[in-house]
Amino acid sequence: MPPSLRLSDMTVATMDPATTDYGLIENASIVIENGKISWVGKASDCPSQYTALPTQDLNGRLVTPALIDCHTHIVAGGNRAREFEMRLEGASYEEIARAGGGIVSTVKATRAASENELLTDALGRVDALIAEGVSAIEVKSGYGLDQGTELRMLRAARRIAEERPIRVKTTFLGAHAVPPEYTGRNDAYIDEVCIPALRAAHAEGLVDAVDGFCEGIAFQPAQIARVFEVAKELDLPVKLHSEQLSNLGGTKLAASYGALSADHIEYLDEDGVIAMAQAGTTAVILPGAFYTLRETQVPPIDALRRHDVPMALATDANPGSSPLTSLLLTMNMGCTLFRMTPEEALAGVTRNAARALGLSDCGTIEPGKRADLAIWDVQHPAELAYRIGFNPLYKRIFGGRA
Amino acid sequence: MPPSLRLSDMTVATMDPATTDYGLIENASIVIENGKISWVGKASDCPSQYTALPTQDLNGRLVTPALIDCHTHIVAGGNRAREFEMRLEGASYEEIARAGGGIVSTVKATRAASENELLTDALGRVDALIAEGVSAIEVKSGYGLDQGTELRMLRAARRIAEERPIRVKTTFLGAHAVPPEYTGRNDAYIDEVCIPALRAAHAEGLVDAVDGFCEGIAFQPAQIARVFEVAKELDLPVKLHSEQLSNLGGTKLAASYGALSADHIEYLDEDGVIAMAQAGTTAVILPGAFYTLRETQVPPIDALRRHDVPMALATDANPGSSPLTSLLLTMNMGCTLFRMTPEEALAGVTRNAARALGLSDCGTIEPGKRADLAIWDVQHPAELAYRIGFNPLYKRIFGGRA
Ligand SMILES: [Zn+2]
Ligand SMILES: [Zn+2]
Repeated sequence: MPPSLRLSDMTVATMDPATTDYGLIENASIVIENGKISWVGKASDCPSQYTALPTQDLNGRLVTPALIDCHTHIVAGGNRAREFEMRLEGASYEEIARAGGGIVSTVKATRAASENELLTDALGRVDALIAEGVSAIEVKSGYGLDQGTELRMLRAARRIAEERPIRVKTTFLGAHAVPPEYTGRNDAYIDEVCIPALRAAHAEGLVDAVDGFCEGIAFQPAQIARVFEVAKELDLPVKLHSEQLSNLGGTKLAASYGALSADHIEYLDEDGVIAMAQAGTTAVILPGAFYTLRETQVPPIDALRRHDVPMALATDANPGSSPLTSLLLTMNMGCTLFRMTPEEALAGVTRNAARALGLSDCGTIEPGKRADLAIWDVQHPAELAYRIGFNPLYKRIFGGRA
Repeated sequence: MPPSLRLSDMTVATMDPATTDYGLIENASIVIENGKISWVGKASDCPSQYTALPTQDLNGRLVTPALIDCHTHIVAGGNRAREFEMRLEGASYEEIARAGGGIVSTVKATRAASENELLTDALGRVDALIAEGVSAIEVKSGYGLDQGTELRMLRAARRIAEERPIRVKTTFLGAHAVPPEYTGRNDAYIDEVCIPALRAAHAEGLVDAVDGFCEGIAFQPAQIARVFEVAKELDLPVKLHSEQLSNLGGTKLAASYGALSADHIEYLDEDGVIAMAQAGTTAVILPGAFYTLRETQVPPIDALRRHDVPMALATDANPGSSPLTSLLLTMNMGCTLFRMTPEEALAGVTRNAARALGLSDCGTIEPGKRADLAIWDVQHPAELAYRIGFNPLYKRIFGGRA
């Protein structure tokens, strides 16, 4: 058990949903016992039972909930730097495909990689997130597209939490793309590979949630629905990549299954937003892909606000459309590109990111929550989203341990 | 003197302008003596006189010239996070101005800061650059707009090189904005403050180059010309913020003074590009400000290529339009937002950045140049621009010292 401790002389942004202005408390104290938060408030109000605890003085620093990256493809073979370069040198999509580029190249590299190789490769990227105060990440499969590789990706993802002080939620994303050997036979892929792999992964205890990519270039809603039916049978929550490039109705489908989240949603209309609100589905906003793909259609932020749909923000870390491993930069992009406020951005990588993962024990600083905290060398929480390419993390506390 | 040394088992991107493909040499060696590069080439070709030197094995890593940030306002008082937040919360420019926002707030904070405060504040940002392999930066004045503060900024800038292993080139930017006390009297400001401050700063040995901001919201070409005449008299090179928001002809003016660089240049036309080519002026491309201000007019990259104008890339680190302190992210933005190639991006923060500062002893890996090197945990130089928010620096060598 980590030692009991009182943090003192600091500003706290509790991100308590019942408050406004970040739930800011100046001259605050936090009491940590058994890895959890026992008390938070004005230092002057601290109950006498805690005043004898060892106290760590934070010299006026800012404390927030530790960050959470709720949408990543951080386990993946290879990288696509040369494809990035070829495109900028003027190569056409055909030329890139002929040179082995596109998602197929990641599938190939992932299939060729051992579990240890996938793990080692991912750890470098995970370390970049941890260095910015991240305490929990979601990791998706979806570059295997065959049963063996999908399970290997999920096993590598689980092992991240053994190698590093971080929590990992795994998501089965067999319905990410159609592998070359099934070109034009999407339904057969769903029946013969995706669903059996999901059952096998679940039997091995590797699946926390089930995801898909509902898009013209991937799967139709009816195909996703077949996967979601199996998720329902296995009692697994669902989430979906939906309305990223067009409006196919994937988000509504996901909401009808009570999805934890609908992700991307640039092309979502107000009807879809209402469906999310009614289902309690969180919107996961992914500006890294929008930036990299130079999209112009922004997600319906105003409609999400009007209908009180919680907004999370995530890196979408992946080798193709978002080779991004900074959640702080993601916050800046959410503000700069999508006009989210810095407070929405911080809620998006704490409270609402927890919600998108079905985690109820983290994401805010409240009694009873895990002591997952980030301590920053900044005066005001708006600075976290304001700066670009700057990491003011002073220290991270994970489950009460510094 | 740093010890003589041979680096071995690596790939080198020499960035030699006479080569293509980054000047890549695989299985390379670099020999360092007296802080300078004595030899670079295939390890198998290494002259026998060097084979007895102590050898450091780099296990196949990539070595590039150390990076150079050739346009920063990194010495500045305060920060503008709350202004960033107010704008995203829907405040109008008037409301922000009334709350003390805009460049005036930076001028106020800078005037109120001591030299030590300016230095300490800047060092945090400089450290972020150094952590990415930066060995030289340019620092501008321009937030004092009175003689005392302009000189204090430049003294703080010079002291960065005493506090950190980095080279600093200082640029006098008195013609950055009109301070509140001179509103509507731009000419009087130039005559009564800017030019006397330039002479005083030069007399104190604080000026490596002279810059201005030529724009409707700042100074007209004729006003800039008066400052440049003094620079010429003092034998100081010039550079200019020009054609960022409109085409006023500033770049042509700068070229007529043989400017080291013209910076921003989003609105530059082909005539202006030709003027730069004829004058040997380097284009300094600043995607951070373009991104932050959500501009849509991209600089004339194709015309710059056609006329062989060297392109540098820089952070423009400043508290208002580009609170950016990552040169790697700047490279990615140059590629993603302006369609520069990864090779152009790397040349932009090495060889051409040196050129924009009038430095002839760094920016490439060639015999006789300073041993300012960056060693990266990547396979191919395209990875440096491809990743977003990830720092693969293994080690930096500065003047031959690790
Ligand atoms: Zn994704
Ligand atoms: Zn500037």
